[in-house]
Formats: sequence, C-alpha cells, structure tokens
Amino acid sequence: MSDSDFPIPETNVLAVASHVVYGPSYVGNTMATFVMQLLGCEVAALNTVQFSNHTGYGQVKGTRATATEISDLYQGLKDSYLDDFDMMLSGYLPGAASVEAVGTIARDLKYKATMKPGSFFWVLDPVMGDNGRLYVAEDVVPAYKLLLKDADLILPNQFEAETLSGVKIVDIETLKQAISTLHEQYRIPHIVITSISLPTSGAAPSLSIVGSTIASDAKPRIFGIKIPTIDCYFSGTGDMFAALMLVRLREAVSNIEGLMSKPSWVSDDDVEATELPLARALEKVLASMHGILAKTKEKRDEEMDKFNNRVKGFGEESEKRLKLAQSKAAEVRLVRNEQYLKHPEVRFRAENV
Amino acid sequence: MSDSDFPIPETNVLAVASHVVYGPSYVGNTMATFVMQLLGCEVAALNTVQFSNHTGYGQVKGTRATATEISDLYQGLKDSYLDDFDMMLSGYLPGAASVEAVGTIARDLKYKATMKPGSFFWVLDPVMGDNGRLYVAEDVVPAYKLLLKDADLILPNQFEAETLSGVKIVDIETLKQAISTLHEQYRIPHIVITSISLPTSGAAPSLSIVGSTIASDAKPRIFGIKIPTIDCYFSGTGDMFAALMLVRLREAVSNIEGLMSKPSWVSDDDVEATELPLARALEKVLASMHGILAKTKEKRDEEMDKFNNRVKGFGEESEKRLKLAQSKAAEVRLVRNEQYLKHPEVRFRAENV
Repeated sequence: MSDSDFPIPETNVLAVASHVVYGPSYVGNTMATFVMQLLGCEVAALNTVQFSNHTGYGQVKGTRATATEISDLYQGLKDSYLDDFDMMLSGYLPGAASVEAVGTIARDLKYKATMKPGSFFWVLDPVMGDNGRLYVAEDVVPAYKLLLKDADLILPNQFEAETLSGVKIVDIETLKQAISTLHEQYRIPHIVITSISLPTSGAAPSLSIVGSTIASDAKPRIFGIKIPTIDCYFSGTGDMFAALMLVRLREAVSNIEGLMSKPSWVSDDDVEATELPLARALEKVLASMHGILAKTKEKRDEEMDKFNNRVKGFGEESEKRLKLAQSKAAEVRLVRNEQYLKHPEVRFRAENV
Repeated sequence: MSDSDFPIPETNVLAVASHVVYGPSYVGNTMATFVMQLLGCEVAALNTVQFSNHTGYGQVKGTRATATEISDLYQGLKDSYLDDFDMMLSGYLPGAASVEAVGTIARDLKYKATMKPGSFFWVLDPVMGDNGRLYVAEDVVPAYKLLLKDADLILPNQFEAETLSGVKIVDIETLKQAISTLHEQYRIPHIVITSISLPTSGAAPSLSIVGSTIASDAKPRIFGIKIPTIDCYFSGTGDMFAALMLVRLREAVSNIEGLMSKPSWVSDDDVEATELPLARALEKVLASMHGILAKTKEKRDEEMDKFNNRVKGFGEESEKRLKLAQSKAAEVRLVRNEQYLKHPEVRFRAENV
C-alpha cells in the first residue's frame, strides 16, 4: 500500500483519553488509537487512566493519571521537540484538574500554530454524561466551558450539548437554539451533536446526529443525518466516532483547495449546510460505524446464544455472570472488520434540518 | 476484508510491556499492539510504564506501574471473566517485582490451559540489556531465570542469551552450547537468539538470527538466517520482532495439522531444523522487518538532510538538537508501511548452522 491508499496526508495526532487493558474492549484511546493508525495517522496516545476493563462491566481495577502526570508527559514531548502535532483529540479526562491541564496543552499547541492558520486543529469530545445524568464531578462542567473557545470541533451528545449551552433540547427549535448558543457564545467553529433522540410519534426508532459549521456572522449552518438504531448497548462508540470524525474531516477539508490553510478550516459563507466538509465527513463516519456495529450485533447474538445454552439457572451468581457475559459479547468487533473503517459505503446522506 | 485476509485464526493476546506516548515512537506495547492488531489479533495491552518518549532521546518523563498495579489489572480482568487469552507476550518490565508479577500471571493462564495442551502459549522477551551491558537492576536476572521454565518461546539477544545460559558466545560452537543449555536446563521449547554478531574476517557486515525447537531428548534443532545490516540505530525493533514472531509462529503452526494442540507446539522429532514452523515464522518476520527498516532508513536520511540544511553551527545547544533530531528521524515508519507487515516477501531463508 502506498501513501495514496490512505485517505489523508501524513498527520501527527496527540490523543488524550483513557486506556483500557482488555483488548477487545475498544474504548477511549484503545479504540481511537487503532482507528486513526489504521487510517494512516501517527498517534501519540497520552493515557489519562489505565483500567483493566471499561466500567460497563460494573467492576474495574486500575489507576488514574494526575493532572501533573499529564502535564509532565507533554513537557517530556516538548523537551525533545516531539510536539509537532497537526491535530489533537481529547476524550475522557478524570477530573477538573486534568481538563485544565489538557486546555493548557491545547493552547500551547494553538499558540505555536498562530502564524500558520489551519496547521493545528483540536477535536474536543467533552465527555461528561449521558441520558440526563452527569458521570463526572460537577466541577468538570465549568472547566470544560472554559476550554470551548479554543476548540475547533466539539462532539457533545445531546445531554452534554444541553449542559454546555444551557438549552434543554426537546424539539428541532431548541436543538437549533442550543447550536446557535454554542456558536455565538463560545465561537466554536464546528459542532456535531450525537445521539439526539426527540420525542416522535409512531415511527421506527432512529437516532439523529446534527452538525453545523459557523458562518462569518456566527450563525449556524445546520444539517442532520438519521440512522436506524441497533438494539444493543455498545461501549466505546463515542471514541470510535471521535477518531473517525478527526480523520474524515481532515480528508474532506484536504479535498477542497485552500481550505486547510484557513483558520479552523471554516468554509466560505456560500457553502450550504449539506455541502459542508463536516457533512461529507459525518456521512462516511456513520457508514463505518453502522457497518462495524451491525457486524458486532450479529456476533454478539451468536455468543449470547452459546452462553445461554451453557450456563443455566444458578441464581444470583449466574445473574452476575450473565451481565458480564453480555458486556463481553457486545464488545465492538474492530480488528477483523477493518474494511468498514477503510472503505465505508455511504448510505445515509446529510439533509437540511 | 474477511477473516481469510488475516494470517491467523482469531487470537486473544495479553501484551505486557511499556507504553510510550510519542506516537511515531513505536516501541514496547505501542509497537507490539499495532503490529498484532493489524495482523488480526485482539490485544489486551497491559502497560508497565507510561513514558513521554523512548529513552534513546536521553531525556524522558513519565511513570512506572508498580508490581501491585500490574497484578491488580490482571485481577480486574479475571473478575470479569476477561482472561481468555490464547497467547501472552511479555516485554520490558520495570524491575524484579514486576518480573515476578508477570510470572504469576503466566502461570495462572498456563494452569487454566492444563487440560487443553497448546491452548495457551507464552512468548517471553527477557529484556535485560544489550552489547555486553545490563540496563536493568541486577536482581532482574535471577527473577527472569525463575520464569524460563514456564515460557514457550524466548527471544533473547546475544547478551541476554549469554546472561541466561552462562555461556559466553564467541563462535558457532559456544552459540550451540548456549542454546543447548537453555533447552536442557530450563526445558524451553523454542528459542530465538537475535542480533548475533560473531567476529568474522573480511566479509560485509551482517547479523545472524538463530533459532531452535527442542527435540524429545532435549537436544536442539538449530537453524540460522543471515541478514544484511542497515547502518542506523532504530528503537523498538525488538518489540516489532517479538510481535511479528508471535503472529507468524501461530500462523506456521496452524498450517500443520494437529500441531496447535500439542504441548508448546513442539514438532515431532522427524521434522528437521530448517523445516520447523519456527524457521518459517522467522523468515517472514525478517522479511517484514527488512522492508520496514529499509524504508525508515530512506526517510531518515531525507529528514536529516533537511535538518542539516536548516540548523547549522550553534555550538553545544545545536549538538543536543542534532542528537534529538537523529532520534526522531530514525523512528520506525510503521503506520504507512503496513504492506510489509501484511505481505512480507521472503528473501532470506533458514539454513542449517
């Protein structure tokens, strides 16, 4: 395979997120690193925690890095002139102090790139909670708010978008309002809100993902993609999403002459919402994810059938084993399904919202 | 890509080694994990250290995991029934206590596999030193000696083989003696000694790698492969070598009916040295490595030319920068040269020694 087999030019990425030992547990950096490497990125993985397995198992062992350790590792890179990053991806951070530490890293990289607009791009996944519930300490929220103005693309889920914008999303109108607030208040260039589920009547269950790139008057350009839901809980999908968005946005931007050297890769005002590079990127990302997750669901069901035939009725102990087996069976099948990552077949198209 | 595009059946690997943040620094688990994943393994990466960069830069920041942390992470996997490993790869360990902790993990996995011979296989890289010099504490040596009897394949370099066998290798005779000692004294099924450099007269510089699989009378079956040297110091080549050996040995063994269910995958006595699966595996591994390193050398030279044209004569400070730039330029070019990993073209064949 030559360079042309990779969707993007050579790209050095600093990825700051959690590390989980159990291999098939592709979450955090374990997920993001492999996805980005497979697509041709050089990835510096700065691990904020080392856990035995992801928390979906209900029990876990391991350690968290302190904010000082995170800053120290970055300083180590700088000391040896190894901080030549084109992009940064930040995911789960174990507390407000580490959020601040990562903000300092991002600002340092951004500052270095001042004279070359577009030469550094930060994808921030503000991991804080889901389904109406915070799963980080409360002081993490204001810490993230202080970072927003330096991010180039943020990837909150519905709950995180509500938390950051202060707008409760209940319909299309409030969704637009949340996005407008984030653009206007924090001047965030690109926003994608994932896992949007609005009360609908009757229709088959579906999830929406909505994106927007800021216009020069700070107004949004909003598009959305609807995808069918797969009835299963998977871990690490947020991390896969973030890693793929990073690669595919760089690809879409590099396909448009001159855009890569504009600040934050923001398209001119005459580009409509559904024609944005962000929309092209999201289409490919969702195609990859749908392929991988459909395959995972298939294997998961096979594995659970086997488990149910083998283990039967041992009361409480077997209930715990069942839950653990379900977590294990639903681990995303990544390594052997790389074709979906490398060659996504776009089926769901961006539409105006 | 379907399953048949991968050289081996589904394989869960526990990889215990160091983690280095700087992406293009492919050393330790950073190297081994990507190589094994690319070739279709599910890899559980248990990181024994997290350093900003490899020690070749002469300066480094980061932390070491304690032996208790290592044991704890493994216990976390066991608690959730996530310890179904087919193979284990152990590399750099930060001290005697962690060597012991890893021995305990290996014995636990081995014990679980007692009733199914060949269902667990441990590749042990006894990282201790090189070129006549230990770079670990002295008590690491006896700690490793205690593990040897449980390993299935060990991958010492010449100095480590001397240290473990007590035989100084100066010619073919002493080389054979060292291998015989390791087979007989510790009953190690498979041995590969890397970076063997014996005093020769006149000939072009070359490196030898020598392997052996034990026969039923504990005698060795020795073969060797000579490869041309590439005049440059690369970091992480030992880890790439170990990861590739793990995959390619499993592949070679799975091509021989029934061998995978024999204890430690040891071939019958009628299989000659150069016909061993270990020899087939080594041929492919060296082909991959030669491809990757030749490409790396090419890029390294280009990069250093650029550096030398840019940075000229600033005394002491520039000498330090030069050394750092040399380390960076020699980082193994892995991600974008994956074809050499996936499709090695064998050029150097195993020969009798």
